[in-house]
Amino acid sequence: MSTHIAIDIGGTQMRAAAFPPEGYQPIKVQRVPTQTPGAFPQERLIQLIETVCPPDKKITSIGVAAPGPLNPKTGVIYTSPNIAAFRDFPIVGYLQEKFHVPVFLDNDANLAAVGEWQIGAGQGHDHLIYLTISTGIGSGIISDGHLLQGEQGMAAELGHVTVMPDGPLCGCGHPGHLEAIASGTNIARWIKEQLNQGAESSLQNTEKITAKTIAKAANHGDQLAGAAFEQAGSYIGLALASFLHIFNPSMVIFGGGVSKSGHLLLDPVKRAVKKHVINPKYTDNLTITTADLGDDAGMIGALILARTATTK
Amino acid sequence: MSTHIAIDIGGTQMRAAAFPPEGYQPIKVQRVPTQTPGAFPQERLIQLIETVCPPDKKITSIGVAAPGPLNPKTGVIYTSPNIAAFRDFPIVGYLQEKFHVPVFLDNDANLAAVGEWQIGAGQGHDHLIYLTISTGIGSGIISDGHLLQGEQGMAAELGHVTVMPDGPLCGCGHPGHLEAIASGTNIARWIKEQLNQGAESSLQNTEKITAKTIAKAANHGDQLAGAAFEQAGSYIGLALASFLHIFNPSMVIFGGGVSKSGHLLLDPVKRAVKKHVINPKYTDNLTITTADLGDDAGMIGALILARTATTK
Repeated sequence: MSTHIAIDIGGTQMRAAAFPPEGYQPIKVQRVPTQTPGAFPQERLIQLIETVCPPDKKITSIGVAAPGPLNPKTGVIYTSPNIAAFRDFPIVGYLQEKFHVPVFLDNDANLAAVGEWQIGAGQGHDHLIYLTISTGIGSGIISDGHLLQGEQGMAAELGHVTVMPDGPLCGCGHPGHLEAIASGTNIARWIKEQLNQGAESSLQNTEKITAKTIAKAANHGDQLAGAAFEQAGSYIGLALASFLHIFNPSMVIFGGGVSKSGHLLLDPVKRAVKKHVINPKYTDNLTITTADLGDDAGMIGALILARTATTK
Repeated sequence: MSTHIAIDIGGTQMRAAAFPPEGYQPIKVQRVPTQTPGAFPQERLIQLIETVCPPDKKITSIGVAAPGPLNPKTGVIYTSPNIAAFRDFPIVGYLQEKFHVPVFLDNDANLAAVGEWQIGAGQGHDHLIYLTISTGIGSGIISDGHLLQGEQGMAAELGHVTVMPDGPLCGCGHPGHLEAIASGTNIARWIKEQLNQGAESSLQNTEKITAKTIAKAANHGDQLAGAAFEQAGSYIGLALASFLHIFNPSMVIFGGGVSKSGHLLLDPVKRAVKKHVINPKYTDNLTITTADLGDDAGMIGALILARTATTK
């Protein structure tokens, strides 16, 4: 049987799953924390893959979704702000040497876009933007039925677009990126700053302030929590209007943990988009929605990448 | 003989040229001002085309380059901030009815990108950004060997990307677009503001302050004039770094009148790009250069569009 392995490397955990030749139901899934003191994540990745391999060890291909920037053509992860151990890591060569099968790599958000486009919320939309709002902000773009990759495969980094030149510093070190203003981390940072400045909120007694606890407070009527989503959503909408002018898509899909807050985020996004587009035609036939595949989108995309490349 | 007509509609003038079946040397070129009091530009466009038609009146196709937003699929120009008479104008249907030949329409900057890519500065680069800096800022993008058009053909409006949310108003009515900060019009506006505030400059006695006269003053050592290009270039570079993160091209081509100032604009652009990219790999194999085809790029692109579509 032709078994494909799909891997999703995240800042918190690495996941591996074995898939049959057809369909999207995994045979086996395993996960380990990405960072463990004293252990090389590269070796733990190998062990992780081995635990999902079939008993006969026979696999056909491996697809890897990893945070960018990376080069899918050379198979190297360049910088990974949240996963320092994988800096300048030739992951494709490394895994090919260990497993002796073709290995394919792409940006996790690119692959999530492919997953949503092929079997998720974006089916039938050949011009779509997938935006994942979680710890950081990533994206994948389908343009005229093709995944946008760029010359070295480093395209579609919409989180690292400057929306406020004098804004807060991004994790990448540059000021005013969309990610620095509207990611989950930065929504929480903004709340903490407001609380430190004496703002009133039910979150004052919350031990762990995250996008999730802020969303909960907002849904219970906490005004500061609501304002945090309002601000993040309005900046995402401002940037999204620019992205509509750039790509003119028929669908925008929001994935990632923060987008699970639903209307709390999407309502201000939609209002800001409407306010900032230069022509209503950009939104007339546009659907803005949330992802179908959840946390599995990147892994499903990695599977599609590996399968497509080995059955061409 | 198979004669193709290419038209370039600009804010100042409309040009039409007749081309033979092959090559890029026009048989005849004519131009008229776009706006003339009391005359309908639509009718003058018809007359303009008739003056370049061959004596036997036989033509094969017409390609039209016009300012966007427009829909190449339906053949309608939506809004044209600088050419009010063409608002919501179904130009393709209008010309087809008059001339009984296939008519093709696209954004002038898109077509300039096609021209530069096919026979100009961008030959061999399948991932390129063409930015035209003149009265406004337009762009055309070739991604993986395809012109980026979007669902309704309204993509690649890079001039209408917000780079400074609280910045000056753009011609389109929205604040802080790249065009509102760095177009020729806005470089001149900034100089006039500085002069009104008492800034020292040789431009104080210049009757007509334009990007061209400012460039001349800068080349003669005028510090205020130099600062105007420095500021515009640094904002274009800031935005361009974002565009590199979005498209990861191997070439960026600057066209339009303002880019004729050469190093005055491109030096600060290159410095700002270097400063703002999140990884040096985005610029390692990147060429930033000026256009080869000058004012003819859009018309050449319109010709390529019309020829390609009718010889498929």
